[in-house]
Amino acid sequence: MVRPIIAVNFKAYYPYSFGEHALRIARDAVKIVDEYDVDVILAPPFTEIYRILEIVQGSRVKVYAQHADPVEPGARTGFIPIEAVKEIGANGLILNHSEHRLKLADINWLIKKAQKLSLKQIVCADVPETAAAVSVLNPDIVAVEPPELIGTGIPVSKAKPEVITRSIELVKKHNPDVVLLTGAGISKGEDVYAAVKLGTLGVLVASAIVKAKDPYAVMKDMAENALKALK
Amino acid sequence: MVRPIIAVNFKAYYPYSFGEHALRIARDAVKIVDEYDVDVILAPPFTEIYRILEIVQGSRVKVYAQHADPVEPGARTGFIPIEAVKEIGANGLILNHSEHRLKLADINWLIKKAQKLSLKQIVCADVPETAAAVSVLNPDIVAVEPPELIGTGIPVSKAKPEVITRSIELVKKHNPDVVLLTGAGISKGEDVYAAVKLGTLGVLVASAIVKAKDPYAVMKDMAENALKALK
Amino acid sequence: MVRPIIAVNFKAYYPYSFGEHALRIARDAVKIVDEYDVDVILAPPFTEIYRILEIVQGSRVKVYAQHADPVEPGARTGFIPIEAVKEIGANGLILNHSEHRLKLADINWLIKKAQKLSLKQIVCADVPETAAAVSVLNPDIVAVEPPELIGTGIPVSKAKPEVITRSIELVKKHNPDVVLLTGAGISKGEDVYAAVKLGTLGVLVASAIVKAKDPYAVMKDMAENALKALK
Amino acid sequence: MVRPIIAVNFKAYYPYSFGEHALRIARDAVKIVDEYDVDVILAPPFTEIYRILEIVQGSRVKVYAQHADPVEPGARTGFIPIEAVKEIGANGLILNHSEHRLKLADINWLIKKAQKLSLKQIVCADVPETAAAVSVLNPDIVAVEPPELIGTGIPVSKAKPEVITRSIELVKKHNPDVVLLTGAGISKGEDVYAAVKLGTLGVLVASAIVKAKDPYAVMKDMAENALKALK
Repeated sequence: MVRPIIAVNFKAYYPYSFGEHALRIARDAVKIVDEYDVDVILAPPFTEIYRILEIVQGSRVKVYAQHADPVEPGARTGFIPIEAVKEIGANGLILNHSEHRLKLADINWLIKKAQKLSLKQIVCADVPETAAAVSVLNPDIVAVEPPELIGTGIPVSKAKPEVITRSIELVKKHNPDVVLLTGAGISKGEDVYAAVKLGTLGVLVASAIVKAKDPYAVMKDMAENALKALK
Repeated sequence: MVRPIIAVNFKAYYPYSFGEHALRIARDAVKIVDEYDVDVILAPPFTEIYRILEIVQGSRVKVYAQHADPVEPGARTGFIPIEAVKEIGANGLILNHSEHRLKLADINWLIKKAQKLSLKQIVCADVPETAAAVSVLNPDIVAVEPPELIGTGIPVSKAKPEVITRSIELVKKHNPDVVLLTGAGISKGEDVYAAVKLGTLGVLVASAIVKAKDPYAVMKDMAENALKALK
Repeated sequence: MVRPIIAVNFKAYYPYSFGEHALRIARDAVKIVDEYDVDVILAPPFTEIYRILEIVQGSRVKVYAQHADPVEPGARTGFIPIEAVKEIGANGLILNHSEHRLKLADINWLIKKAQKLSLKQIVCADVPETAAAVSVLNPDIVAVEPPELIGTGIPVSKAKPEVITRSIELVKKHNPDVVLLTGAGISKGEDVYAAVKLGTLGVLVASAIVKAKDPYAVMKDMAENALKALK
Repeated sequence: MVRPIIAVNFKAYYPYSFGEHALRIARDAVKIVDEYDVDVILAPPFTEIYRILEIVQGSRVKVYAQHADPVEPGARTGFIPIEAVKEIGANGLILNHSEHRLKLADINWLIKKAQKLSLKQIVCADVPETAAAVSVLNPDIVAVEPPELIGTGIPVSKAKPEVITRSIELVKKHNPDVVLLTGAGISKGEDVYAAVKLGTLGVLVASAIVKAKDPYAVMKDMAENALKALK
């Protein structure tokens, strides 16, 4: 059976995404996958990946980079080729986030390269048409996030459910193998419930978990709602 | 007394800049600063900073990021604000490397911000004029690296010594407090000797150390020559 | 009946793409459409559009911008929003050329905006997968140009005919309404013949026409071959 | 005797910066230089340069590009190398505007190249330190524009006169040959008066002239105030 997905984009919230608070989120995530039949993906800043990996080791929690640069390794200063993500031990990467858009040719190149290195890919898209376009490139997961809702606390599943249903329809038409996530404005369990009910397999969340006083409680609420919606 | 500087830009050489080989360079650097009165700065990829810091802890070796993005922390996916560099425990950062040029306004903003967070800055420049221009912004260190010599193994101190002497002259005129390093094509001890003799305080090196079979031997040769030239 | 297309990307060859030589190409193009049942599209540098438009006025030659920036008009210095292209009187624009790649979300945004302003769009793609991906966004024309062949004089129709046939197959599957052009390495009539025989409606050419001593002769050869292939 | 300068950045205001309204501003500028002993520089969008040049021909009005791309001419699609600016007949260019910042090495490269092609350069800067840094690169003119005031209608000469006086002081120290302009928030004659009184040779203005119902009246007011301040 397929498990719902809670993917946590740590972004670069200060101080939440770094240091002790970042490690705490990782420990909480380990508890969640022990207690619930959900998959949790954590995407910390590049500098924090190693410490987070140490914590989630042995659990079902996966660690993704937030981005990779469309460059080959070599004489590159301050860039992160996919090989850097692989070498540190991460399991996958987010590509084309609305805060870090990529050129189309680079998205394709990065997906192909990640596949060769056995790294999973979550590719973000802003509207149903671009979600369908990237699905043609055959990534593992496409996350639909209308940029105007990101960080607002207004869930796309409530404000624009038709963006989700239309994305599902278009993506299924162009590539039925792609897994879909709902992003943007997801802040509580009921948003996750709606996202899964609409037909996506889970959510891409950021501040609601990362800046929470009790990240465990938020993830627990989301995990329970995701499982309830899947039944 | 002031110590000469060997700054090692790990870049993203595969597999040298990552994993076990990166850690070995760090261990070798610790030996060097124990044995010689030189300062060593290591600039690994973002993902490797934490592991390198664990190794050099307690020694005089400093760890710098290769770059920082000109952004405030917050809702930023896949970017490295200076706060990320500080939080992981690094001591400084390289800015405006020829492989990662920055806008002038951003160089200024990043220098000011690094100063507030007590992070040292090495700012790279391609020609004497731009070296002088960045020295006006008052960074700790300026490294002069003609891009056409980077990675060639032809040291700027041999191919274009006038670039170094002219840079020293112009930088001293505009800001006598700035420390100068020689970069580009530095591959052995004699290049370091020449760089220090010409009047800079040391070198910014990459492949000659990072891709060396025996990084310790290369750094030792460079350290001895730097000290000899300073006498 | 549908006419084959010869689209001429002037690029920024010095001095060919500018001034008197640019105007001559425009005059030659007018002759071609008068003599042959083909469509000619000219894409000069932004600064030359106005002069070229004056020359082709009243003929069937169309003038496209080489690019537009993904920005709204307003307080934008040194950028070309689509409105600038429309205001000067051009008929369309090239988007996502291999020398000026765009982010996926921006390609979509620019296509939609161009459609609102009744400007035609040629969207470039590097491989069949990205050609299919952009075809989902429903532009008028997709030009397939493997970047490794651009400027080589080795026509994609000869070096990699499977890139063309596979692109046609994939694009037809995802959006049968899109017109396809063959680009990269097209230098003479026989290359155009092959491109049209393979199933595309014409070519996107640059130096072979722009740097030609006799642009008229080259275009004439291409027009005749395109028409022969269509029969 | 040196004349005060009114430099008009057309930006990309729709529809003001384009077509008929753009041409009207050019005609008005010709009248101003006929009537007043001031210099007027017009910086229209790339696509409009040719038409504006036709109008100002024979007058003392100069036409600058708003930007040039840091590329050599050649196989470049949708970019504007400096040669394109020269070929169309313009007299100079703005570089590093706050809406189009450039990398430091590119500013230097573009200044040198513009000098070779006998094109004048206005280089923008955000704070006194960067104004001083670019003055080291020896451009003709430096315009100081605190970005937070651009487009506000609050003149820097009123809100932050110390930015201007400090810029003058620093620039004079590092390169006394550079001409200084005041930018940001300049909207009427009295702002120009203050800018010149503070010690700069004129202003860089945008919306106050470009979006004015009567651009002639605004320029006339500014010209008169600039001359009054110079006495």
